[in-house]
Parts: sequence; C-alpha cells; structure tokens
Amino acid sequence: MVNWFRRRRAHVPVLRLRPRGEDVATTKVDLAELTPDLPAYLGQAAYLQLTLFENLARAIETAPNAAAKAALGHAASVSLTKHRTLIAEIDRRGFSSAELLAAAAPAIDEFQRRTRGADWYENLVTCYVTAGFLDDFFVRLAGGLAFDVRARIAMVYEDASGEPDIAAQLREALADNPRLASRLALWGRRLVGDTMLVARGVLHFSANHASDEARIEPVFTELVAAHTRRMDALGLTA
Amino acid sequence: MVNWFRRRRAHVPVLRLRPRGEDVATTKVDLAELTPDLPAYLGQAAYLQLTLFENLARAIETAPNAAAKAALGHAASVSLTKHRTLIAEIDRRGFSSAELLAAAAPAIDEFQRRTRGADWYENLVTCYVTAGFLDDFFVRLAGGLAFDVRARIAMVYEDASGEPDIAAQLREALADNPRLASRLALWGRRLVGDTMLVARGVLHFSANHASDEARIEPVFTELVAAHTRRMDALGLTA
Repeated sequence: MVNWFRRRRAHVPVLRLRPRGEDVATTKVDLAELTPDLPAYLGQAAYLQLTLFENLARAIETAPNAAAKAALGHAASVSLTKHRTLIAEIDRRGFSSAELLAAAAPAIDEFQRRTRGADWYENLVTCYVTAGFLDDFFVRLAGGLAFDVRARIAMVYEDASGEPDIAAQLREALADNPRLASRLALWGRRLVGDTMLVARGVLHFSANHASDEARIEPVFTELVAAHTRRMDALGLTA
Repeated sequence: MVNWFRRRRAHVPVLRLRPRGEDVATTKVDLAELTPDLPAYLGQAAYLQLTLFENLARAIETAPNAAAKAALGHAASVSLTKHRTLIAEIDRRGFSSAELLAAAAPAIDEFQRRTRGADWYENLVTCYVTAGFLDDFFVRLAGGLAFDVRARIAMVYEDASGEPDIAAQLREALADNPRLASRLALWGRRLVGDTMLVARGVLHFSANHASDEARIEPVFTELVAAHTRRMDALGLTA
C-alpha cells in the first residue's frame, strides 16, 4: 500500500508558508516512465476535458443568476477549447478519436459520477478542484511523450485557464454565505481522493511496482500542495 | 439607409431554392421598426445564446456515446463564442451585462423550460430548430440598430454555425432508427410555436398594433420557410 496520502499531510504546512508566485516544481521528479502511449494519453486527456466542460456546463445551467452563468462561460469555453485541440491532435496523427474516447469513457464517467456535488456550490468546487489538479497532472505526464508532441501539449495546457472565473464565483458565494465554508472545505477534501484515483488510472505501470510507486509519490505530493494553495485562495482549509 | 446588411442575410432562407452563389434579396421586408433599443437587443441576444449553449451542453452530457459528445462540442463552442462576443459588446458600450441578462432571463428561461425535450433526440431537435430560427430572427432584427453596431452584430451571426454538426448527429440517429422520424417531426412542429412566441417577445411594439403585425407577418413567413428547409434537410416533415 502506498503512503503518499500520509506524506501529503506532512508536506502541506511547509509549502503553505512559501511566498505566493513561487512555483511548486522545485524538484526534478516527473512521471515520464509512467506515461501511457500517445493515443491513450490523448484519448484520456481529451475525454477528461470534455467531462470538465460538462461539469461547468451543469454549473452554468444551475447557476443562481444570469451574471454567474455568464461569468462561468469563459471557464467552460477554455475546457472545450482544450478538448477540441486534443481531438485535433488525435485526428492529425491518424488515430480514431471515437475509439480512444470510448476507451477512456468508463473510468472517467465513474469519476464524474463520484465527484458530482449535492448542489451548485459543491459542483463549482468540483470544477475548481478537479480541473486544477488534473491539468497539472497531465502537464507532468506529458514529459514522457515524444518531444514534438510534448511541446504541442504544453501549449494546450498553457492556454488561458478558467480557474480565476470559477474562484471568483466561489469567493462571492462564500462572502454571501460564510456558513458554506466548512461544508465546501469537506467536499474539497473528499474530491482529492477521487481525483488522485482517476489520475493513477491513467498511469502505465511497469513490472516493478515498488519503483513506480517511488516515482509517483513525490509528484502527487506536489500536486496536492498545489491543491492546498487552490483551497487557500478561497479561504478554505484543504 | 444602407441595406448591405439586409442583402447579405436575406439570401439565407431562399438559398436552397436557388443555384448556389446567387444571393439576391427577394424581399424587402424587415423588422427594423420593431427592433428594441440597443441594450435590450444585446441583453436578450446574449442570454439567448447562453440558453442555446446550455441546451447543447445538456445534449453533450446525455449523448449516447463519446463520439456524439465530441461532435456536438463544436456547436456548443459556437453558441458560447456568440454569447461572449455579445457580452463583450455590452461591456464595451458601458451597459451592465448583469442587469441586461437578468432582465432577459424570465421570458427566455420559460422558453427553455417549454422547449425541453423528453430525451436526447428531442433535445437535439430543439437545439437545431430553435438556434436556426432565432439566429435568423436576430439578424433580421439587427437591421433596426445603428449602423456601426449592426455591422459588428452581423459578424457575430455570420461566424461558423453549429448547425451542420447537429444535423449530422440527427441524420445518423434517424438512419439508425427510422421510427424516430414521426415523433421528431411532431416535436419540431411544436417547437416553432414556442420559438415564435419568444421571438415576438423581443419586439418593441408601437402604438399602431395593426401596422406592426403587418410588418411581422412576412418576416415570420420567411423564418418559417427556413425552418421547413431545415427539417427537410433531416428528411422530416415540417
């Protein structure tokens, strides 16, 4: 059994003391050895962006007012653009996007089901937490792809993020109703488990499982630290 | 008053009846006298695109397979881009998008509720029929706006349409299951009533109601003719 979960707790307080803006990635650890082959990477990345988009679309549909709907439109279009760029890359390389998306669907659909919140606020936290974590994860994972495609993938994820739009809506909701904080903090914490699970499911494990776990652990520690900062930005405990 | 704008769009409804490329306007009727003031026009147009986007997002979420989801992504991004461009126009002119969207919401939310289909197929027909009709309508209506804004609005609606993507999905569904045809034809016919109702609600009526109705009638006749051609393109009776 891996112990990254326990480790995370030990690392988090240290990282929270860093000045904002100082990048987390101080180590050289990466997931290159565990990167799946290119079609599997692209299919899962594309289906995941579509899922993140669907979650945002649901948040738009159930938003409490028209201004909130409009504000989330940007975040939704960012995810949809990433999805479409990844599909274009699949098509360009001659893979079948229908097959790759279908292969990615079961695990990610289950992740979507498990991370669906009880109301608009929880769903918005889902959009915020899972998109942030998984975008970070797929960027790290791209380190194991061939150089030419890696540069193109980097561009996909370096594009504008919807994170500030979602965070603004959540901060507004929390300001209007401070009693939401403890419930949303709890929900955020629950999401990390499911998000790490779906991320691990993307990895291509070798025969040497112990060595693989040793690679995974520091990367996930960093991703969780980034998650903690994301929750901090809302004034919520991670 | 220049009429290049009307000329350019007026060919759309008659296009399929004429050789391609021949784009002479066949009628001079327009809705210019009934166009609401600019903020009301922009607010309603923007909120409507957001609603069309939400409907497509729901169709993506409930699509029968991953390929259908991906194919509808383009159509959804088209509506969202239109929405965002209209919001940018509202902001640029110093109007409050939050207020204008909130004012537009009740009537359009009711329209959305009434046009929600019983399943994925009906919802897809809703996306296809209502977006086509209302985009045509708002283009006609823009004839009554000041020249500078009219040109900018024309660009919004002349951008890529999601219609071919939606039509392709519907044709595929009908090919797989021809028994859907009569139900979807019936649904398409029902939608026209609600769509015309929400369109009429956008118009700014004068004191002379009879004269207003005389203006509306030929325009709606043309919009319905375009709707008939859209249904024909699916092999469905309008």
